[in-house]
Amino acid sequence: MSTTLQQSMFAAIEEELKRQVARLDQPHTRPFHEMLTYHMGWTGEGSGPQAAGKRIRPLLVLLGSASFSVGTKSDGRTVINWLHAVSAAASVELVHNFSLVHDDIQDNSELRRGRKTAWVKWGAPMAINVGDALFVMANQSMVDLKARYPAEIVVKAVEILGNCCLDLTRGQYLDMSFEERFDLKMEDYWRMIAGKTSALLSACTHLGAILGYAKDSEQEAFRLFGHHLGQAFQVQDDILGIWGDEALTGKSAASDLVEGKNSLPVLYALEQNGKFAARWKQGPIPVQEVGGMASLLETEGARSFAEQAAETETKKALAYLEEANPQGEAGAIIRELANKLLKRRQ
Amino acid sequence: MSTTLQQSMFAAIEEELKRQVARLDQPHTRPFHEMLTYHMGWTGEGSGPQAAGKRIRPLLVLLGSASFSVGTKSDGRTVINWLHAVSAAASVELVHNFSLVHDDIQDNSELRRGRKTAWVKWGAPMAINVGDALFVMANQSMVDLKARYPAEIVVKAVEILGNCCLDLTRGQYLDMSFEERFDLKMEDYWRMIAGKTSALLSACTHLGAILGYAKDSEQEAFRLFGHHLGQAFQVQDDILGIWGDEALTGKSAASDLVEGKNSLPVLYALEQNGKFAARWKQGPIPVQEVGGMASLLETEGARSFAEQAAETETKKALAYLEEANPQGEAGAIIRELANKLLKRRQ
Repeated sequence: MSTTLQQSMFAAIEEELKRQVARLDQPHTRPFHEMLTYHMGWTGEGSGPQAAGKRIRPLLVLLGSASFSVGTKSDGRTVINWLHAVSAAASVELVHNFSLVHDDIQDNSELRRGRKTAWVKWGAPMAINVGDALFVMANQSMVDLKARYPAEIVVKAVEILGNCCLDLTRGQYLDMSFEERFDLKMEDYWRMIAGKTSALLSACTHLGAILGYAKDSEQEAFRLFGHHLGQAFQVQDDILGIWGDEALTGKSAASDLVEGKNSLPVLYALEQNGKFAARWKQGPIPVQEVGGMASLLETEGARSFAEQAAETETKKALAYLEEANPQGEAGAIIRELANKLLKRRQ
Repeated sequence: MSTTLQQSMFAAIEEELKRQVARLDQPHTRPFHEMLTYHMGWTGEGSGPQAAGKRIRPLLVLLGSASFSVGTKSDGRTVINWLHAVSAAASVELVHNFSLVHDDIQDNSELRRGRKTAWVKWGAPMAINVGDALFVMANQSMVDLKARYPAEIVVKAVEILGNCCLDLTRGQYLDMSFEERFDLKMEDYWRMIAGKTSALLSACTHLGAILGYAKDSEQEAFRLFGHHLGQAFQVQDDILGIWGDEALTGKSAASDLVEGKNSLPVLYALEQNGKFAARWKQGPIPVQEVGGMASLLETEGARSFAEQAAETETKKALAYLEEANPQGEAGAIIRELANKLLKRRQ
């Protein structure tokens, strides 16, 4: 799936991101600028599209903005150029990358998209500052909407960004505080992924609708589409993290069990308090036990429970998408993208 | 110096800060909320006013907003209540505290205002997230101005905050990259303190003037007052860090020499390339050498150079203050505060 419109959007996103990050491209901060361009996938060893990430979040902003403003002025709808929303698209991608840089320090992760993480290359103190700068630029990018939108809409966009970012810190707090705990409930899981995954996706769809001058009811439905898209996507990711085909997922099968991740299937099994729970509480799972533990999880109903949960969230996402009913070529791409994300096999 | 107006402002600042930080005061994020309230000086061991900091930055915002809006409507000036600007005051204090929390991790500092730092208490991963949350709340606080100000002014305020925060990350980058370097020029020093110290102070005075509906020329003069106030204050801090009376400064005399800090007197002496420079380049200064090195610095002209620089910046600050000419009781307090900060002995 790749249309001319989508390609134009990806190009515009990348150009705008580079323009935003170039705020640090000055003689005395050039090495600092290079830390950011390395992380963004543009420079340094291993740079290129595979190092940059998929840019799904900014794409959702632009597609949203393009799909609610396709009427004519006689409809009572304002016709906008999706390019007007491009600094908001850059903003959400900068937030995503700020959270990745800090996440990698917090999780002690040495690799990101197959490349050394910022803290491995420049040390944690510099990497903290790299994340901070990306976050500052996210706010600055959002304010740049003022060139194309009335101040009331800019304020609303900055507010949505702030609320979403506070949710990110909540999710991050819960994730970190859940380590080494065996008394978690599934409600803890939903609260954590709402912050870590769905808050930013729902901010993207919400912003897209607002910047496309969607009606209030369309804005709300499209926001909820993003939320449930995030929830469904995360549950699927959890399932793939245990039962995914290594060749398809590109990561070691069942590695989430080795890493001790509090995924939905694991939390379900802990609530069942059966054989899986008993073994899980005894300590880390070595690679050779992973197959047996995955089978135990399946026997105890964790896989079908998670698949059911993913299905429920997927249905909600698609129902809200239809309620929002995005129009035109952008609307068609959103539907295709949603279906791809929700049934992804890679 | 303590007036009823000033006391009212301090009380309003503290109340607003607590209200902003309470965004995390929810059942599942309560321990996270407590990390923030501990850092802010409100809870935990050693809490109290001495743990909270002086709140000079938010005070400057409120005093500024109160001193340009003292006319009557017949003057063509809008009369505002300084309380309308209180969320902007909270915002700058939250930015200051975000930078302190991340600074302490970056500098490996174990104490802040006599208490354990956040990373010592909860580990660096949690402390990074505490700083991030304070920064998010700074943006949210600024957006809260929308209840009292037109959207155009809110956008302007958020923009000033963003520009200031990017300067903070620039200053932090320079500061960290200057460690272990002996080839620094004094221009590097000015650039670093402009980011680390003066950017936030000039944002405070700029915001104060804008939120007090000052004229453009008053806004610009008051902004420059804040900038030079910051520059003068930092140079004085450098002088006190080497020649300050331990009893007055409350920290070990000459400790900046032991810490190897790139202060203005040191950079001046390095440019002279005399005896001080030769010894400095050989490695750390132990406590017993501090007296001799401070004398060398003085002999080589570093002290009088720094005092001259502080005097120059002080004069500029006071000249811009007079140009801005803040009015009424708040204007008088600003003058008194500026004189106190610029000639401080503690």
